[in-house]
Amino acid sequence: MESPKKLRIAIDAMGGDYAPGREVAGAVEALRTSNANIEIILVGDEPAIRRHLQELNANELPCKIVHASQTISMADSPTAALKQKKDSSLAVGMRLHQEGKADAFISVGNTGAVLSAATLILGRIKGVSRPTIGAFIPAEHGYCLLLDAGANVDCREQQLYEFAVMGSIYVQLLWKKKNPAVALLNVGEEKSKGTESVVKAYKLLSASKLNFIGNVEGRDILKAKADIVVCDGFVGNSILKFGESVPAFLKSKLKQFAEKGLINKLAVGLALWPLKSSLSDMDPNKEGGVPILGVRGVTIIGHGSSTAAGIKNMIMRAVEVAHTQINKDIETALVNSI
Amino acid sequence: MESPKKLRIAIDAMGGDYAPGREVAGAVEALRTSNANIEIILVGDEPAIRRHLQELNANELPCKIVHASQTISMADSPTAALKQKKDSSLAVGMRLHQEGKADAFISVGNTGAVLSAATLILGRIKGVSRPTIGAFIPAEHGYCLLLDAGANVDCREQQLYEFAVMGSIYVQLLWKKKNPAVALLNVGEEKSKGTESVVKAYKLLSASKLNFIGNVEGRDILKAKADIVVCDGFVGNSILKFGESVPAFLKSKLKQFAEKGLINKLAVGLALWPLKSSLSDMDPNKEGGVPILGVRGVTIIGHGSSTAAGIKNMIMRAVEVAHTQINKDIETALVNSI
Repeated sequence: MESPKKLRIAIDAMGGDYAPGREVAGAVEALRTSNANIEIILVGDEPAIRRHLQELNANELPCKIVHASQTISMADSPTAALKQKKDSSLAVGMRLHQEGKADAFISVGNTGAVLSAATLILGRIKGVSRPTIGAFIPAEHGYCLLLDAGANVDCREQQLYEFAVMGSIYVQLLWKKKNPAVALLNVGEEKSKGTESVVKAYKLLSASKLNFIGNVEGRDILKAKADIVVCDGFVGNSILKFGESVPAFLKSKLKQFAEKGLINKLAVGLALWPLKSSLSDMDPNKEGGVPILGVRGVTIIGHGSSTAAGIKNMIMRAVEVAHTQINKDIETALVNSI
Repeated sequence: MESPKKLRIAIDAMGGDYAPGREVAGAVEALRTSNANIEIILVGDEPAIRRHLQELNANELPCKIVHASQTISMADSPTAALKQKKDSSLAVGMRLHQEGKADAFISVGNTGAVLSAATLILGRIKGVSRPTIGAFIPAEHGYCLLLDAGANVDCREQQLYEFAVMGSIYVQLLWKKKNPAVALLNVGEEKSKGTESVVKAYKLLSASKLNFIGNVEGRDILKAKADIVVCDGFVGNSILKFGESVPAFLKSKLKQFAEKGLINKLAVGLALWPLKSSLSDMDPNKEGGVPILGVRGVTIIGHGSSTAAGIKNMIMRAVEVAHTQINKDIETALVNSI
């Protein structure tokens, strides 16, 4: 579908583990293979970006470069880095978006720094106390949006409630699903279970207009009992990372099995095709990235190790989100509920 | 190895999902197949237990029955159930242990109720503010003891520190491993990461005599980066249950793959042997159960759905723990460190 209006997508070209090669390759792939009406602004070290564009024979594409002399690394402290590196690709790109020179911004850089930059430079949406980042966990059928996935380690009930509202609106827009099922992660189904914040959040969610289905436990995430599962960022981050380590665990166990003999080795060889195919949803590049919910504008954040295809999917996600009224919907829902 | 002293193991015969059949079968299996010097006391509905013993032709075994007229179910509120059901198999069995008529107690019943009963009836070890229950998570090599696994949803730094001390002592005795590696679960490796309690626990652990290797993330559990991973019970319970749901998730995904055609179906059929064998460590019956750490005596707790083999393994674990000086070691370590 041709987009109605040309969208300018700014990309932090220096944030990822393989920057700027993969960022440039992803941008080129998006421009060449999608028919979205977009222009891309690559933000970062101009000579390096230009070299990668030339290698891909991409000079003719609608792709601009905005130079930024500094880079925020994964090891940098988010707040310190933003203060000290005013000319980082992250800060420059985010400011382009804030000034209206880009319609969306994407980064696979230091998550904490991207979140801080979005909050400081773009500002929070009215009614939101803390912006959040979710993660799509592949489930038995479809996905489950787990949020917060690490942006806020310690949450009060009001924040958990806000995450539920924002997650619900996002899933509704993304999956075109009316009244998606929202659940609260807990150690048991009974409403009296959990920490004080969680018990209070249960009450807030029960009284809300959301399709709140109650508490779910850790075992219910992969079962897709709910479309959205809400928790604090400490729990969400731990589960997300635990889940991401499952394929490597399986690989290691199968390798140990294969080493027991020739027949075992053969059996493992045959098992790889169905297994890899069954686990393909666990590749984070498939989903690409997730928006920072609760800040103005459109910021999509992705894995540092994203492939070019992953970056392309993030660009397409940015286009999709930019065409919605998600921030207005969030403001309306949260301001009216207070 | 013949145990030096005859140990009397009391079993809550009514707690599990398949009570009392599996409890009785597990007891009979332990008495018949192990050469441990034990006597078993089955606590619960005498006629039902006797019927099961007769079915298994087990009248000749060193197995006593102590009648208890009530049962605490999984749905019961732990504290209310203990107050109202004074003659439950759980309370009666725990009192036998407290009065010295049994050397250990095992249950696969309502975890919260077993924990409360152990704390109230047996009492805490000096220096312990909150007893804890851990879980052995199968890792790429061996296991990782994750604790707390759900007993304490909200923890201060002192509790996290106590869990680390108790987990370290238990692993040392169980695996005969000197100075096992202890880690703190966190959202990042830096010591400034996490909630206030976790940041403070990092300091306590760094200053302790434990072999503290620092923070690990959710992805490091299956990698067995540490022998013991410490977290609050909300996080631990969520990860444990998430992990337990992985085999069913894989099965569902493989089934979906198999339904795509005959060749797919064949490939999945061939994949089952290496997969099942590789995942066999994920069967909780293999480990049997875990002790409640921090209470006097020896209480082993297991899954409600434990098989007879699982119950037998719990009995063997109880024997093993009863032959150690774990509670004395815990008291020495914690009282001296204050």
